[in-house]
Amino acid sequence: MTLPPEFSLIARHFLPLAGEGALDLGDDAALLTPPPGRTLVLAADAMVAGVHFLPDDPPETIGRKLLRVNLSDLAAMGATPLGYLMTCGFARGTGDDWIAAFARGLAADQAEFGLSVLGGDTVVTPGPATFSLTILGHVAPGQALRRVGAQEGDDVWVSGTIGDGALGLLALTGRLQPDDHLADRYRLPKPRLALGQRLAGLVHAAMDVSDGLVQDLGHLARAAGLGAMLEAAAVPLSAPAAAALAADAALLPRILAGGDDYELLFAAPPANAALIRAAGMEAGVAVTRIGCFMAGEGVRVTDAAGGEVPLPRGGWSHF
Amino acid sequence: MTLPPEFSLIARHFLPLAGEGALDLGDDAALLTPPPGRTLVLAADAMVAGVHFLPDDPPETIGRKLLRVNLSDLAAMGATPLGYLMTCGFARGTGDDWIAAFARGLAADQAEFGLSVLGGDTVVTPGPATFSLTILGHVAPGQALRRVGAQEGDDVWVSGTIGDGALGLLALTGRLQPDDHLADRYRLPKPRLALGQRLAGLVHAAMDVSDGLVQDLGHLARAAGLGAMLEAAAVPLSAPAAAALAADAALLPRILAGGDDYELLFAAPPANAALIRAAGMEAGVAVTRIGCFMAGEGVRVTDAAGGEVPLPRGGWSHF
Repeated sequence: MTLPPEFSLIARHFLPLAGEGALDLGDDAALLTPPPGRTLVLAADAMVAGVHFLPDDPPETIGRKLLRVNLSDLAAMGATPLGYLMTCGFARGTGDDWIAAFARGLAADQAEFGLSVLGGDTVVTPGPATFSLTILGHVAPGQALRRVGAQEGDDVWVSGTIGDGALGLLALTGRLQPDDHLADRYRLPKPRLALGQRLAGLVHAAMDVSDGLVQDLGHLARAAGLGAMLEAAAVPLSAPAAAALAADAALLPRILAGGDDYELLFAAPPANAALIRAAGMEAGVAVTRIGCFMAGEGVRVTDAAGGEVPLPRGGWSHF
Repeated sequence: MTLPPEFSLIARHFLPLAGEGALDLGDDAALLTPPPGRTLVLAADAMVAGVHFLPDDPPETIGRKLLRVNLSDLAAMGATPLGYLMTCGFARGTGDDWIAAFARGLAADQAEFGLSVLGGDTVVTPGPATFSLTILGHVAPGQALRRVGAQEGDDVWVSGTIGDGALGLLALTGRLQPDDHLADRYRLPKPRLALGQRLAGLVHAAMDVSDGLVQDLGHLARAAGLGAMLEAAAVPLSAPAAAALAADAALLPRILAGGDDYELLFAAPPANAALIRAAGMEAGVAVTRIGCFMAGEGVRVTDAAGGEVPLPRGGWSHF
C-alpha cells in the first residue's frame, strides 16, 4: 500500500484541521462544551465514489462537498455550525498527495464556514472511496426550522437557483456541453446558512433540496397533509441552466427533479413575503416564490398557461 | 436492486430505533438539548466488510459491533452514552431481511446501553458494506479520562481479558478451532462503561485497547514521555485463550498485539490499587495490574523470569 502509516497520516493532514475540543486527535474521543442555553442540531451524511461524486473529481472538492451537504442540513434547520466528525475510507493505493489535497479543501471550507474537525477515523477500503460526516450546530431553543408545519395558502419559496447541480453532473459526464459554473455547482454546493438563520419566525416549514425540487416539495406538502402547486416558469435558473433549457426543453424534468441543489425550500404565509425578501437581501441570496400549498395531495407542476407539466415520478432515490 | 425505496426502508427498520430529538428521522437534522453543566464527549468510527468485520458475520452483530466500538471510546473517557448517528452503506442487492436483522441487533444494544439513534443516512454502495457511527456522551466538566498523564512508577492496568477478539477472528476464519466464546468476543466487544465512569480521580491516564495491547500501551507511554514494562505472564486471559496459548505458544504475539480487545488500559499510582480493585468489583469486571511505567521509551515485554519476549513490531495499522 502506498499510504503512509495511519498515525503519521492523521498528524500530517488532519491535525492542522483540528479545533478546540479535538484534543489534538490523540484521545479516544473529543470534548465539547456546548454553548449554554442552546439546542444542539445534528446531521450525518455519507458519500460513495461513483455514486455521490465522480471518482475523478478534484480531491480538493470531495471532502468540501460532503461538508457542505451537511452544512446545508444545518441551514435547513436555521442552525449555526459548531464542528464535525468525519470518517474517511480511502481507496486502496490512495497517495499522500491526494489526501493532502482532500485536507486542503476541508481547510478552506473550515475557514469559510467557521468550524473545525472534532474527530473521526481513517480506514482503507478495497471498494470505492467512502466518506461519512456528522455535523454539529446549535440553535436557540424552539427556533429550529422544521419540515412539518406548512399551511394551506402558504407560498412555496426557494433560494438561489435550481437544476445547476443536476446539469453540472451531465456536463461533467459528457452528456451536456462542458460548463464551469454548472460543474462547480455540482461539486461545491452553497449551504444557505445565513438565510436559514434569518427565517425563524417567518416561515412555517423548511428543508433543503437534495433529492430534487419536486420530490422535496412533496415531502413538505405530505408532512402537512397538503398538496402543492409548483409554477415551472417561476423556478429560478442560472444563466447556463436557462441556456441549456432553451436549447433542449427535455431538460426540464432533470432541472426540476434531478437533485443536488442544496438550496432552501420553505413555506411561508403570503403576508411575510416582504420580510422574506429582506432576509434574502441580508443573506446575499436570491429568494423566489415558486408556488403555493393547497388542500389535496401531491405536487402539481404547471406551465405559464396553467397546464400541467408531465414529469417522471419522484426524484432521486438511492434504492 | 432488491432494496425497497429508501424512505420506507428507514421508516420500517430505523424509525423504531429513533429516540427523543430524532424528530422521527423526518427532518434535515436532529435536535438535542444537552444535559446542563456537562461536557459532551464525541467519537466516530467506520467499519468495512472484509476489513473490520467478516462479510458472513450475522447481520445482528455487525451494527452492534460498530456501536460497541464507539461505546468503548466513551468508556475510555469515563463518559455516559447519550445517542448516536449512523450512516449505512449497504452492499448492492442487500435484502430486507438482512437489514431487519441488522436493525434488530442495534435495538438490543440500545436497550442494553441506554441510548438511541438521533439520525443518519442510508446509501447503497457498489463496494463492500461500509458503516460509520458517531457517538455522543457526556461527562462532568474536567472529569474526562485522558491518554496523556501517566507518571513514572504508575502501574499499568487492564480490564477483562486480552486476546479473545484476535483469537476469535482466527477461530472464525479456520486458523484456530471453532470456539463460541472467542467468536463472540470478536463480534461483540464489551464496552467497559461502568468501569470507566468509576475511574475518574483514580487514574492518571486511560484509553481503550483497539489496536493491540502492546501498541496501545506504547501510545500511553509515549504520550507521557515514558517507557513501559509489560509482564506477559500477568496479562489476563480467558479460559479458551489460555488453552489455545498452552497448545501453541506461538499465539502469544497475536494475543498481546492482535487488537480488537476493547478493554480499558490505564495508568494509576500504586497507592490507588485497592480503590481500583473496588471500582472493578462495583462495575462487575476484572481489573489486573500487568506492568508499570518507567523512564525511557518503548514497551518492554517480559516473561516470568524477567527476560524479554520478542514481539513483531507494532500492532494493527490500517495503512
